Order: sequence, then C-alpha cells, then structure tokens
Amino acid sequence: MTPEERHRERMQRKKELVDRKIARATIERGVLVVNTGNGKGKSSSGFGMLARSLGHGFRCGVVQFIKGSFSTGEEAFFRRFADELDYHVMGEGFTWETQDKSRDIAAAQAAWEIAARMLSDASYDFVLLDELNIALVKQYIQLEQVLAAVAARPPNQHVVITGRGAPSGLVEVADTVTEMRVVKHAFEAGIKAQKGIEL
Amino acid sequence: MTPEERHRERMQRKKELVDRKIARATIERGVLVVNTGNGKGKSSSGFGMLARSLGHGFRCGVVQFIKGSFSTGEEAFFRRFADELDYHVMGEGFTWETQDKSRDIAAAQAAWEIAARMLSDASYDFVLLDELNIALVKQYIQLEQVLAAVAARPPNQHVVITGRGAPSGLVEVADTVTEMRVVKHAFEAGIKAQKGIEL
Repeated sequence: MTPEERHRERMQRKKELVDRKIARATIERGVLVVNTGNGKGKSSSGFGMLARSLGHGFRCGVVQFIKGSFSTGEEAFFRRFADELDYHVMGEGFTWETQDKSRDIAAAQAAWEIAARMLSDASYDFVLLDELNIALVKQYIQLEQVLAAVAARPPNQHVVITGRGAPSGLVEVADTVTEMRVVKHAFEAGIKAQKGIEL
Repeated sequence: MTPEERHRERMQRKKELVDRKIARATIERGVLVVNTGNGKGKSSSGFGMLARSLGHGFRCGVVQFIKGSFSTGEEAFFRRFADELDYHVMGEGFTWETQDKSRDIAAAQAAWEIAARMLSDASYDFVLLDELNIALVKQYIQLEQVLAAVAARPPNQHVVITGRGAPSGLVEVADTVTEMRVVKHAFEAGIKAQKGIEL
C-alpha cells in the first residue's frame, strides 16, 4: 500500500467514526453555552457566535453586564445591525472603577431585567449575556433567578453566558462549557492593551 | 466602618493595583494571539476579535485554512464588510472528508501564500489565520516559514492564529496564548450541531 493509500484508508475510518457520531446526535434544540476561566476569549468567542448567528439571519439579543474599556469596538460594529440585533450595554465599568456597590447592584439588576425579557421572548433566536457570571459571583443577581429563566426559555433559543467563575449550578445545566485557560498573557509582559485586540 | 465603606476601600486598593499594572504596560505594538486546546471557542474568539477590529475601523484580513461545515454563517456575515475586509476560505473541509492528502497539502499551501502576502503588507491592521495550527500539525505548512513571516511582519499588525495543537515554537513567540479546555460538550451528549451556534 502506498503512503497515499494508507492516508486514504485512515481518513475513511475516521470519517466513519465522525459520521456515526453525527448520526447519533439527533436532538435539535437551543443550547446553553458557558465560557468561563481566567484566560482570554470568553467574550470574544460569544461575539464571534453572535456574528455567525447574524450571518444565518437569526434575531439576536445582547446584554453586556460589565462595560469593559474595550467594548467600544464591538458596539460600533454590531450597531450596524440595528434591525436584527438588540444590543444593551449595562453597568458602568469594573467594580473597582465605580467603587460604589449599591450602584453596581442596581445596574446589574436593570441589566438582568432586560435579559429576562429576552429569555422569555421566542422571537430571539440567540441571546448573549456577556459577563453575567461576574454579576452572579458577586451575588448582584441571584443564580436561582437565572436558572429558572434559562430553563423556561423558548426551546429553540440559544444562550451564551460568559465570565470567569461560572457557578457550578450553571455549569450543571449548560450543554457546552469551555474553560479558557491562560497559557501566557501579553499584558503581564508589559504590553499595553490596545483597541481592536483583546489582550 | 459600614460595609459600603469597606467595599469602597477594598475597591480603591484594587483600582490602585490595576492602575499600576496599566502604567507599567507601555509597549505599543501589534500582538500575536494564539487560541488552542480541544475546547470550543478558538475560532469564534478570533472572529469576535475580527468584529471588534472592524468596529475600530481597522483593515482586516482572514484566511480560513479549513472550511468547516459551520463557517457559512461567518462568511455570510463578514462578506457585508467587503471594503474593509479581505476574506479567503481555503481548503475543502476536514481531511477525513477529502481523503486526499496531496489535495489537502496543495490547498493549505495556496492558503498560506495568501496569508504570507497579508503578513508582509502594512495596510492590514489585523490578520486572522483560522485553523492554521491544524495545517502546521499535519506539516502541510512548515513552522519555520510561519515563524519567519510572523517575525518580519509590520510592527503594528495584530495576528490571531487558531486551531488545536499549537506547536511549541509558535507558543514561544506568541504574546497571548489561551488554551480552550472542554468542560462539557453538547455534541457528546447527542445534541445535533446547529447553524449559528458552535457546539
């Protein structure tokens, strides 16, 4: 057998395996995706999924629970899609910026009200709740409320929740959970955070 | 001291720490970001950074080294930005779909030529090389070529490289490296891959 033929045979076996797995995956419903961990890419992955969903013509909703310094690029981009996308940026920066706990709680709860409305509205195909985990960790929003709203949502609605420290109760009910783990980080090496790129 | 005051004091100390770190991070140049690991979110995070970069008015280039079944949503979305974005989808699906090694190699090398041109062109502010790691692992493209092109690129150009199995030589020269780790995966639980969402 030539190396080319061996490759072909190996790939045929692999294809059979993959095809069998695909055939077994028959449940069609909205999924709950959680991106957590201390590494980068949790939010940007959520925004990438948002772009893909808009590309498929889905109606989408976004609530950003923490307005980061670098969210302006996302906003500027996605605001071009005003017809298909309902975009809310809540909160007033990181908690060490505001230094006012009661204002943070009020902002988080106002953001949650908008999110809860999206989760009960079947016209949204895709809902991104960016940095919701942070508000849960700080107990600005009660986990039980979130679990109840997610469980009662329209069956075909996809939900993506991001932020470090995803509570175990949320991980338990999620379909796909990824931990973004830091291998190395430019900021720690003295490189300035720059627009466009999430260091 | 009231709890509110204690919170304020703690947050002030945290802000000082963060501000000191920001003051120390003074190097301004393009960064090389690598997203690797077996979990989800490697590509979608790259596409999220792309959206953010386009939001900042950057000129962007994308080469997809492996055309996945779910890339159509991204394509449909980003093709709306034809003026600011140069988008190439190369390759013909996963290797177990084509089952033809020499065709895979030719496709990977054609994709790399386009990528190398972007990496030598200062008019690109942001370049996403999606799934390049897979072509490197299979040695369809030589790592040395990639390292040389990345090192010689315009100093302010940001580059994002995705795909499982990032070679250690690439991790070494990268500024920010994240490992996406699977915690759980809907597909393994029998849920069908669906458009819009990256399971």
